[in-house]
Amino acid sequence: MTFEIAAIVREKTAQAIEILKEKDVDLWITFVRETSHVKDPVLDLLLGFDLTWTSALLIHKSGTRVAIVGRYDVSNVERLGAYNRVIGYDAAFQQPLIAEIEALRPRQIAVNYSESDPAADGLTYGMFRVLSRALAATPYADRLVSAEAIISALRGRKTASEIQLIKAAVNRTEEVLVQLQPYIRPGVADTEIAGFLHNFLTENGYGASWDWDYCPVVTVGPDAAGGHAMPSGLRIRPGNLVQVDFGISRYGYVSDLQRTWYVRPSAETVIPEAVQCAWDATTVALEAGRAALKPGVRGWEVDAAARRALVDAGYPEYMHAFGHHIGRTAHDGATVLGPKWERYGSAVEGVIEEGNVFAIELGVAVPGRGYIGREENVVITAHGAEYLIPPQEHLWIA
Amino acid sequence: MTFEIAAIVREKTAQAIEILKEKDVDLWITFVRETSHVKDPVLDLLLGFDLTWTSALLIHKSGTRVAIVGRYDVSNVERLGAYNRVIGYDAAFQQPLIAEIEALRPRQIAVNYSESDPAADGLTYGMFRVLSRALAATPYADRLVSAEAIISALRGRKTASEIQLIKAAVNRTEEVLVQLQPYIRPGVADTEIAGFLHNFLTENGYGASWDWDYCPVVTVGPDAAGGHAMPSGLRIRPGNLVQVDFGISRYGYVSDLQRTWYVRPSAETVIPEAVQCAWDATTVALEAGRAALKPGVRGWEVDAAARRALVDAGYPEYMHAFGHHIGRTAHDGATVLGPKWERYGSAVEGVIEEGNVFAIELGVAVPGRGYIGREENVVITAHGAEYLIPPQEHLWIA
Repeated sequence: MTFEIAAIVREKTAQAIEILKEKDVDLWITFVRETSHVKDPVLDLLLGFDLTWTSALLIHKSGTRVAIVGRYDVSNVERLGAYNRVIGYDAAFQQPLIAEIEALRPRQIAVNYSESDPAADGLTYGMFRVLSRALAATPYADRLVSAEAIISALRGRKTASEIQLIKAAVNRTEEVLVQLQPYIRPGVADTEIAGFLHNFLTENGYGASWDWDYCPVVTVGPDAAGGHAMPSGLRIRPGNLVQVDFGISRYGYVSDLQRTWYVRPSAETVIPEAVQCAWDATTVALEAGRAALKPGVRGWEVDAAARRALVDAGYPEYMHAFGHHIGRTAHDGATVLGPKWERYGSAVEGVIEEGNVFAIELGVAVPGRGYIGREENVVITAHGAEYLIPPQEHLWIA
Repeated sequence: MTFEIAAIVREKTAQAIEILKEKDVDLWITFVRETSHVKDPVLDLLLGFDLTWTSALLIHKSGTRVAIVGRYDVSNVERLGAYNRVIGYDAAFQQPLIAEIEALRPRQIAVNYSESDPAADGLTYGMFRVLSRALAATPYADRLVSAEAIISALRGRKTASEIQLIKAAVNRTEEVLVQLQPYIRPGVADTEIAGFLHNFLTENGYGASWDWDYCPVVTVGPDAAGGHAMPSGLRIRPGNLVQVDFGISRYGYVSDLQRTWYVRPSAETVIPEAVQCAWDATTVALEAGRAALKPGVRGWEVDAAARRALVDAGYPEYMHAFGHHIGRTAHDGATVLGPKWERYGSAVEGVIEEGNVFAIELGVAVPGRGYIGREENVVITAHGAEYLIPPQEHLWIA
């Protein structure tokens, strides 16, 4: 783990204490094991490396931070410097865990489950049963509550150093997307474009912002599958739109951008009207969403503003959410800037806060041409949503 | 995703049907969302890439395999060719899921939770609640059972192509460990050894077999922290033992080996007796464990044989399990070859089966010298445990 990440983990565990005070929750327990199998997403913020045996990270609003881990993980956690005490065990975690809880006498114990926020749902059902059984003979089994509000605040309120790291990732992403320009020409396959970007990741030691197989998504012309489809060998033809959706993971923080090219046939002197009008509509809708995106507003309100603007311009609704947090991951937890569809659950009811960083996105399919995709990354300040880097202002011509 | 992985996923989903018949379980549902956040470990076997919206993979013992996924993931799942039907949805998964279940009328629905096997515990508590609520108005909410026996069999019984991939990873690992030889000399730091192996991973596009930060573990001399400690800058001195615990992930399959060197001071002509005796004791104990490791035996019985041999030779018990599955990950699910300690739960009660692949390991600390670590990888055949590659037969001298 790099020095930067260890420093951020110390920053985030300190921030967690402030959030516990604000939400008036006494104790928060992250309860995990074998995190190389199932990793509670909150470990990125509270630890930064894997744990093997059953482990509990206790954060109390008084400021106490205790890690109970298997003996072999003790030295890594001690060296991290984010916990006041590190308790190692050999055979069983139950006794030290119960002793710590009894010393703290919490009114509530927040644990990591959520029906609507995947980033706050790292406790497995098996581990919930293990914990419930361990606490069965104590008064504390009935005091378990969801930590979703704590995790959402902790993950969503980026510190200055987190924003800096995201911005750096976004910058590097824009740089390499610009370098794609010579590849956007008739005859080049989506797989070659993906290959160029994968090489860029490998050569720089970066990760993909989401699943490697479809990071980037490359949408070539009107026959591409769209969505999260992996590249399939489709080749660019004159008159195609080419959209690339790509992000990198660098020092643990990610970017998520889309850029769209129009492949102009040599005989053409102006962009066809249908293409230009669709582009302009996406600009209007993106800006309408961004204008609505400020502290105090709910996620669905932002989505509604962008969605309405696109429909008012005469185009169909996009079939996804307008925006999502980015940070440690490309879908960095609640709040989602999405419509009130069942599958978004309560994630769209969340309130925008200062320090949030979002990817905002939408698109329009142009018949016979392909797909125009827009995606930019913004940080929320007291004044509203500011672009982290200048957005794509016009179709890139190839 | 590579062609190899897609072929293996088709193989494993077919194998799952045979296992459902054998265990007499009607339906198995893997219920996930945003798998870039929390990835059910079984998805490595059933899919091989990430899903975004709430998704259900249904496998019925009749042979029916149905995937219900968000619209944007449909084309990837269709192209995989492992499911008879792929149902895409836009707004809500509940209606298609209930319709499929009602058509199949299962007596039991196995879902992915386990108190003792992390590899079979991919269902989060939040998602368990979502599923229970979705089924609340049907007779099926009360028919949920643990899929741990199914997952353990499916993950544990490696197919011929899986064994081939693991063996190839083990071979490559042994090759690079041999290449470490010139680095094992006085003055070299554990961080330099780790750096060499990390470079090897990066240059070849391989992953680490477990957490990058402590893969490899490098134990230099008697003052190293041991366990899963990350390298800390400790330098080799004459007379030290140097142990390296390392594995690679290649085409989705991993290795996990340990090799130990003795750094002979120039004046010495023979290995000190305390070092040689400890080495010999580890050989006897490793072979005692391997001799006990065959189909039909329980995990704890194998551990007991190795543990007893080491104690009988006059050395302290190792404070971990003797062995663990390897495959998609370095701790590839139950059965664990471990002692009946509380933290291993029922994972040590599992029965060894043909086709299992294990890492077997133990070690001894030599006062003033360092740590002798032994770890080899074996495949279970009808006749017993066969080494995938020739084991380390004597201390490597540097």
